[in-house]
Amino acid sequence: MTEKNDIDKPWGGRFTEKTAASAETFTASIHFDVRLYRHDIAGSRAHAKMLAKQGLLSEAEKEQILQGLAEIETEIKTGRFEFRPELEDIHMNIEKTLVEKIGEAGEKLHTGRSRNDQVALDMRLYLREECARLLELLSELQKGFVGLARQYLYAIMPGYTHLQRAQPVLLSHHLLAYYEMFGRDKERLADCLKRINVMPLGAAALAGTGLPIDREFVARELDFPAISTNSMDAVSDRDFMVEFLAACSLIQVHLSRFSEELVLWASQEFSFVEIADRFCTGSSIMPQKKNPDTRN
Amino acid sequence: MTEKNDIDKPWGGRFTEKTAASAETFTASIHFDVRLYRHDIAGSRAHAKMLAKQGLLSEAEKEQILQGLAEIETEIKTGRFEFRPELEDIHMNIEKTLVEKIGEAGEKLHTGRSRNDQVALDMRLYLREECARLLELLSELQKGFVGLARQYLYAIMPGYTHLQRAQPVLLSHHLLAYYEMFGRDKERLADCLKRINVMPLGAAALAGTGLPIDREFVARELDFPAISTNSMDAVSDRDFMVEFLAACSLIQVHLSRFSEELVLWASQEFSFVEIADRFCTGSSIMPQKKNPDTRN
Amino acid sequence: MTEKNDIDKPWGGRFTEKTAASAETFTASIHFDVRLYRHDIAGSRAHAKMLAKQGLLSEAEKEQILQGLAEIETEIKTGRFEFRPELEDIHMNIEKTLVEKIGEAGEKLHTGRSRNDQVALDMRLYLREECARLLELLSELQKGFVGLARQYLYAIMPGYTHLQRAQPVLLSHHLLAYYEMFGRDKERLADCLKRINVMPLGAAALAGTGLPIDREFVARELDFPAISTNSMDAVSDRDFMVEFLAACSLIQVHLSRFSEELVLWASQEFSFVEIADRFCTGSSIMPQKKNPDTRN
Amino acid sequence: MTEKNDIDKPWGGRFTEKTAASAETFTASIHFDVRLYRHDIAGSRAHAKMLAKQGLLSEAEKEQILQGLAEIETEIKTGRFEFRPELEDIHMNIEKTLVEKIGEAGEKLHTGRSRNDQVALDMRLYLREECARLLELLSELQKGFVGLARQYLYAIMPGYTHLQRAQPVLLSHHLLAYYEMFGRDKERLADCLKRINVMPLGAAALAGTGLPIDREFVARELDFPAISTNSMDAVSDRDFMVEFLAACSLIQVHLSRFSEELVLWASQEFSFVEIADRFCTGSSIMPQKKNPDTRN
Repeated sequence: MTEKNDIDKPWGGRFTEKTAASAETFTASIHFDVRLYRHDIAGSRAHAKMLAKQGLLSEAEKEQILQGLAEIETEIKTGRFEFRPELEDIHMNIEKTLVEKIGEAGEKLHTGRSRNDQVALDMRLYLREECARLLELLSELQKGFVGLARQYLYAIMPGYTHLQRAQPVLLSHHLLAYYEMFGRDKERLADCLKRINVMPLGAAALAGTGLPIDREFVARELDFPAISTNSMDAVSDRDFMVEFLAACSLIQVHLSRFSEELVLWASQEFSFVEIADRFCTGSSIMPQKKNPDTRN
Repeated sequence: MTEKNDIDKPWGGRFTEKTAASAETFTASIHFDVRLYRHDIAGSRAHAKMLAKQGLLSEAEKEQILQGLAEIETEIKTGRFEFRPELEDIHMNIEKTLVEKIGEAGEKLHTGRSRNDQVALDMRLYLREECARLLELLSELQKGFVGLARQYLYAIMPGYTHLQRAQPVLLSHHLLAYYEMFGRDKERLADCLKRINVMPLGAAALAGTGLPIDREFVARELDFPAISTNSMDAVSDRDFMVEFLAACSLIQVHLSRFSEELVLWASQEFSFVEIADRFCTGSSIMPQKKNPDTRN
Repeated sequence: MTEKNDIDKPWGGRFTEKTAASAETFTASIHFDVRLYRHDIAGSRAHAKMLAKQGLLSEAEKEQILQGLAEIETEIKTGRFEFRPELEDIHMNIEKTLVEKIGEAGEKLHTGRSRNDQVALDMRLYLREECARLLELLSELQKGFVGLARQYLYAIMPGYTHLQRAQPVLLSHHLLAYYEMFGRDKERLADCLKRINVMPLGAAALAGTGLPIDREFVARELDFPAISTNSMDAVSDRDFMVEFLAACSLIQVHLSRFSEELVLWASQEFSFVEIADRFCTGSSIMPQKKNPDTRN
Repeated sequence: MTEKNDIDKPWGGRFTEKTAASAETFTASIHFDVRLYRHDIAGSRAHAKMLAKQGLLSEAEKEQILQGLAEIETEIKTGRFEFRPELEDIHMNIEKTLVEKIGEAGEKLHTGRSRNDQVALDMRLYLREECARLLELLSELQKGFVGLARQYLYAIMPGYTHLQRAQPVLLSHHLLAYYEMFGRDKERLADCLKRINVMPLGAAALAGTGLPIDREFVARELDFPAISTNSMDAVSDRDFMVEFLAACSLIQVHLSRFSEELVLWASQEFSFVEIADRFCTGSSIMPQKKNPDTRN
């Protein structure tokens, strides 16, 4: 085999050996970053429009790109897209396919950007969506607690400290404590969202680009209220992910606290609740058992 | 020995045995919660004023309490206060001493509150202060980076990815990336502060109190913009501490990143910086060594 | 709807409602415990042989079971097995299919055991195998370091502390430090293996079984040097997993340390090594770049 | 100011500025490594004997050193030793004081060693002692469980899974499950001890020493069954600390599990145990309360 270098790779030029299979496997991320496909395409769409507006792409090239991306999006959505692990990640899978579909115009899409700022953008678009979804779910959950509290408005139960009966309280009061917890969780996500919602494109690899791009335009296209102000920070910042995960951890703590309470209340000794059969599992060896599977 | 119960303890009544020494040692927290003394006294001061305003204390009793607390604060500040581990924590050490100083009025201070909401209040007052201090320190640090960036405004250095030279960048640009990071840290602390800044007093043990207290008054006295709205949540909520610690962790990540960079830049191979002797340590066995002790 | 209970579930008897779809999704583990299929079948095989030896199964029943399990193993291995998420986990998927294949004899396989001890057994068989595999890989890795050390036996390089040049050392000496680290990792895995290598079957749900089973026989069949001695501990013990993960974490620390060293040595400033093209990746925007992808 | 360098520091020679106060504070560890004083002195004692045996110290010098170290040990034990934070750590505090006491012979003690291998040695001596102490405490604890099990040998209680009553079990059986857990904890500590029990002295800063030292002699003096075989690994290895902490974490998990069980059993709803007053605390606002303070 005469082909020694990795001409298929966007960075193949200076290389004189093919990438080792083990290295390809190790660096491939397509099996988990495939979930970013919609965000990657949305980012490319906005980038292409900007390039055209700035005269860096012709209108015809832009249209070809938008058309190609639309096809790819549909193919992925409908399961007809063929992912190639040797192309490492979702970004290169999409870009390579675009080039195969529309040729030279597809190659021009990468003008003025790098995978570094592209990945940063995709992650922000993705987590922005996850935040919105979690905020909605938390509101639903709060409504559930309010509904339950209303239903059992005057039911009296023991209030505990150290799991010792301390003072009588209303069950509704107990339940509304969770309303407060999930309310704070929503605040935390909303605060985190402010720091997610910053448009990094234009940072390129780390030092920006000399081309006359319009970052504010891209931000407006993608509905970002702000753009990053330092390119080296823009490509290396992952704080927003850590903050998002920290917020999620506290949500889990609250969910776990309530689940643990249900397990306790469903014990024969407490017998405060009976959980419906449809939410329980049983035992293969003890046919009388009914397990509250709020935990496993 | 005839004294069998723990009459010295505020909760001694129902007990028929003295607390075991090992249990006292295990539950004592005075060796670390002593740092809360100013906050505990500030909270008691506001609580006493409120009780007097509501007619639950006489003016004379209030004055005695304020006078006694002022004395105790001075004694602790000047190292003349005698802490008693058998009184478990800072709250009981102060209250017991107050009762010894002023008698019955001191005992009335606990009217309408419990250690549960008192601890919650103290922690919030304490972390509020820590936040303010950290915000100031972070601003100082940012100014340091801006000053350095101005000093080396046009100095050119290699920009790296994967520790491989990628593109030339300005040192000032590199330094200002830290300005961004610490700016986000400040935002996170400010967001956390919103959730710290909620006045929990009035929640008592967990179920509030039947006495006609004025929580808004206490909040104003202590400069809290909001009061907690669910008593069971108020005494059990520690989310704000977790959130504070998470914010601190990210600050540490940024400090560690810069420190690591200094270590790298101070190596003979990079030789980008020379760290002043006064910030370095040496080796007991290799007299030529000079170690950048940004880490240990 | 007439079908109200979950007759398909092994624990369906006392239930009057079908499991909710959301509860089924939440409790299903088949998407990750499918990897235990070989271990689950090996355990069932040993259990069946023991039941027959003890007269709890007839020889014919045992043969049917062994035949059925062999078929299922082949089907899973060759991708022809149809997994049903509503059967929750790998254990029930296999057992249910066995019953469908061979009828009543299949139902008797569960005699004297519970999913609780079955899961414990599977996890121990699984981790025992992983330990063996890791021990082999670590030995390979050590050989690699020894080979490299021999190749560069007298090559001199700077030894560092605080990343400052301290004393000259031999590269071979530096490399053999990793031999020591991975040697300790092997010791830790071997120690962990002692605690993994304990046969839990017979503990049943938590209280053992009144049937005349022979646990030593099962242990011999499955090559376990010891059996668990307390049934409540046997079904709840997951220490060996935590210990295994802790040992893996230290392995990762050592691998990360070496990788970081390669990254440093491959920098232009150090230039101690050049990593072969086939183990590097490049940049989409900076064609001169070659990145050592020992980390990402 | 004429005094420009840090002549008091063992590494002061090449430095032209005094260490900044903030750097001294930051790098000082004396406030926590003071607990290593016995181990540091034991190590120095063995090192001095070896140096004398090898002819690197005269017998008279050795005697002076042993005498000086004995005095320092007594002074620290009796609280008469004056610690100096500017000397950073326990090692330098002791060495500097030794030199002040006995002059030149004291300076010779550092022959053939560095703080790097000295710290490694101290930590190993310290953790070896901690392991022994924990092993003893765990044995005591196991005896406690055996004693309780014997006392309640035939007491029957519900066995639970998912906190649902599953099958009747003996309380003694339940208690002996903890015997197993703490037994495994002891095994893990004993295994860890094998890796702690390796004598690192002789590694010096990282590259060993050219002096004719006798490492086996030092190992025998300090009762180490093995010596480290790679000097770079010897000074950088902290695996044994991580492993020790991991073992401690599992011990804590077991203690926490039992404590949680006591809290549950002491609830009015379960009422399986009543904890003696001497191990409980009460409430300042609810005089009827008795709290099981196995947790706080």
